[in-house]
Amino acid sequence: MERTFIKDTLSKIGQSVTLKGWVDNKRDFGKLTFIDLRDFSGKLQLVGYQKMSELGIQDAIRITGTVKARSEKTINPDLETGTIEVDVQEYTVLAKSATPPFDITKEDLDLELPTLLDNRSLTLRHPRVQAIFKVQSVIIDSFREFLKGQGFMEFQAPVIVPEIAEGGSEVFQVDYFNKKAYLTQSAQLYKQIVMSAFERVFSVNKLFRAEPSVTTRHLTEVVSLDAEMAFIDSWRDIIDMEDACIKYIFSEVEKKCSHELSLYQASLPSVVEKTPVISLTETQQKIFEKTGRDARGEKDLSPEDEKDICRIIKEETGSDLVFVYGYPTKKKPFYVFPNPENPEFNEGVDLLCRGVEWSSGGRRVNDYDQLLRQVEDWHMDPSKITLFLEAFKYGVPPEGGFALGAERLTMQILGLKNIREASMFPRDMERVDLRLAEKS
Amino acid sequence: MERTFIKDTLSKIGQSVTLKGWVDNKRDFGKLTFIDLRDFSGKLQLVGYQKMSELGIQDAIRITGTVKARSEKTINPDLETGTIEVDVQEYTVLAKSATPPFDITKEDLDLELPTLLDNRSLTLRHPRVQAIFKVQSVIIDSFREFLKGQGFMEFQAPVIVPEIAEGGSEVFQVDYFNKKAYLTQSAQLYKQIVMSAFERVFSVNKLFRAEPSVTTRHLTEVVSLDAEMAFIDSWRDIIDMEDACIKYIFSEVEKKCSHELSLYQASLPSVVEKTPVISLTETQQKIFEKTGRDARGEKDLSPEDEKDICRIIKEETGSDLVFVYGYPTKKKPFYVFPNPENPEFNEGVDLLCRGVEWSSGGRRVNDYDQLLRQVEDWHMDPSKITLFLEAFKYGVPPEGGFALGAERLTMQILGLKNIREASMFPRDMERVDLRLAEKS
Repeated sequence: MERTFIKDTLSKIGQSVTLKGWVDNKRDFGKLTFIDLRDFSGKLQLVGYQKMSELGIQDAIRITGTVKARSEKTINPDLETGTIEVDVQEYTVLAKSATPPFDITKEDLDLELPTLLDNRSLTLRHPRVQAIFKVQSVIIDSFREFLKGQGFMEFQAPVIVPEIAEGGSEVFQVDYFNKKAYLTQSAQLYKQIVMSAFERVFSVNKLFRAEPSVTTRHLTEVVSLDAEMAFIDSWRDIIDMEDACIKYIFSEVEKKCSHELSLYQASLPSVVEKTPVISLTETQQKIFEKTGRDARGEKDLSPEDEKDICRIIKEETGSDLVFVYGYPTKKKPFYVFPNPENPEFNEGVDLLCRGVEWSSGGRRVNDYDQLLRQVEDWHMDPSKITLFLEAFKYGVPPEGGFALGAERLTMQILGLKNIREASMFPRDMERVDLRLAEKS
Repeated sequence: MERTFIKDTLSKIGQSVTLKGWVDNKRDFGKLTFIDLRDFSGKLQLVGYQKMSELGIQDAIRITGTVKARSEKTINPDLETGTIEVDVQEYTVLAKSATPPFDITKEDLDLELPTLLDNRSLTLRHPRVQAIFKVQSVIIDSFREFLKGQGFMEFQAPVIVPEIAEGGSEVFQVDYFNKKAYLTQSAQLYKQIVMSAFERVFSVNKLFRAEPSVTTRHLTEVVSLDAEMAFIDSWRDIIDMEDACIKYIFSEVEKKCSHELSLYQASLPSVVEKTPVISLTETQQKIFEKTGRDARGEKDLSPEDEKDICRIIKEETGSDLVFVYGYPTKKKPFYVFPNPENPEFNEGVDLLCRGVEWSSGGRRVNDYDQLLRQVEDWHMDPSKITLFLEAFKYGVPPEGGFALGAERLTMQILGLKNIREASMFPRDMERVDLRLAEKS
């Protein structure tokens, strides 16, 4: 008999079906064995005969049985298929599972991080772990969907890059046919090149930082969601696009991942029609007025500032989101656009939410001569970014963009404690899949 | 006045609009200046007054003017907006372009490859070059769309990997905190791990090959479209999924890229309802019978064999596509499933089209003990693929998958001569953006 996917059983009450899936959980009651069967499309309760108690957790099986409605008392409201169950007539074991080294059926998979990652293939089967990556795939998908709807074209940003113009020690070097090459730290310059030709572009790309410390917020390899658009009137056009994009992501996650959110007791950030926008200077003034703490004149927001301004904005407007713009020009990269009326401050914009930075972006320098001057002011070697600089020779109008981190967004939305949980195969200075051996 | 996108002008005949875009081309006729304006959404003819002859090719401009219908004689059927034009009342130059070093307005951008790539930002503005990346984005998108429709979940495969079990010299080494790490050559083992938990998964990921030669078909960094599914009845389920997937990609490219295809006089491969499937042995026999050339008993298809079998199948069935299965087991990687009835041959499958291989895939070994035996037979060190092998301890049913190369698919569909044209920023042993300097 042809296989039925679990999600399709709901419409087959009274019919005989063949299902395939994994034994997610099992409860023996003498003559009856209750089994939670899982396939890619959902979960379902099987009512099996006594012999089925031989089945082990995570065995892969095929069964044939009859779909029947549950009595009202036994309906499970937490399960999409909770109104039905399947009476098993026969079953086959397709692949026997070894006994897991820990209890994978526990609702709260209470493992230390090294155990979680050393047993990645197994822990990826747990509902709470699966929830993380379902949410992440919806985040990435809805980023794409929203931007495609606005005419943006996706492009593939490169991983291997030539010498890094901005310098910095946190870059991985690749042995490239006995020449020098590196792993990209940012798609920034490439997305600006592609924007100069296609006007509206985005990419979902990998970034690499040779972060020489182990923290809960850093990985050496992450997924970046990058967007860039030309023909803006001002940096506020960038904010408007980003604001609509992040709200679309939230609404899609809410719509498609309500079950996954509930597993983490997570709720999406509160948003208002127009997310508040405030300058760095105003932010510092506001914090001083509301808390007495004086960070006025500082060059950037401290972690404490980020927490304070998010709390204050939430109280004042109800919004968990707030855009902070106008950072000291020299504290940001060479390509950020200085405010023409006050060039000490720039038109870079960070998006904060729930006390931390979620994204950065803003307007970029689009005039070729100004760009050359800034390259010089930042003490960079223009010959190392020829391909990028050339793009601005040929008529690039005012433009800008923004970038979001997929793992960071996933972590923040679900309230995970460590960013490693939000990466299927997290890499840090000590781990690539498993703990790294010393170089021999 | 608010900006109108070019694609939206068609519905605004008689109205005043503000447009922004690049001067794609210009024709001076004394008192009148005709300009082709380009934005992300399309192209449009402007009818400008005499002064507009000052505008240069690739200048970024803003104009205000009136949309009017063209007279029947002046309609341009090759242009989506060919039934209208805009009479310019005023214009502003947003960014002046330098004079391009070659004629970017030529319909056939007739440049040597090094010139095409050394001037990437500029050549990306040419319609024929833009067409390549529009087609590529549709290929990648439709791969995703099709598989999501079949319940597959997208995941992010890693770039940095630990020691490569299969060995091979064509791997890039990364200096990873004074330990050993590498750039991934394949998402194969990771997609199998993720499949073991999620059943149906795909990824769009980068692969790296330290190919020490410069050919028209190889890059060091490419985009791979990878899919894997569990609970198959046989390898034929994989073929069915891949067959439907590739046909969906073709139909989407045909629907969304007819203009781009026409620029290359490209037509999509001919398909039949069920793509022919033939074993390697049968292929060799057929070639012998039809051409007299005897490749019977060879371990793989030669380039000549690929051309011959594609031509023969096309003549016999009308299909440009053909699946060839059943390769000598020891000629393929350790994870490919040997045919139980004839273990000298395996259940690996290649998809050929128009004389070359487009994809490879097939059924994999899913039984843990068999996998361990094959790891040994292939003289591999199991301790180097612990994370992968562990996955198969916990009940992995019959499974398989396939992979397509995004650049190769783009190249083949459009009939490009060199795969570098199908990558925005192609990398080879001599070039990363620009030609690499010798290591100092």
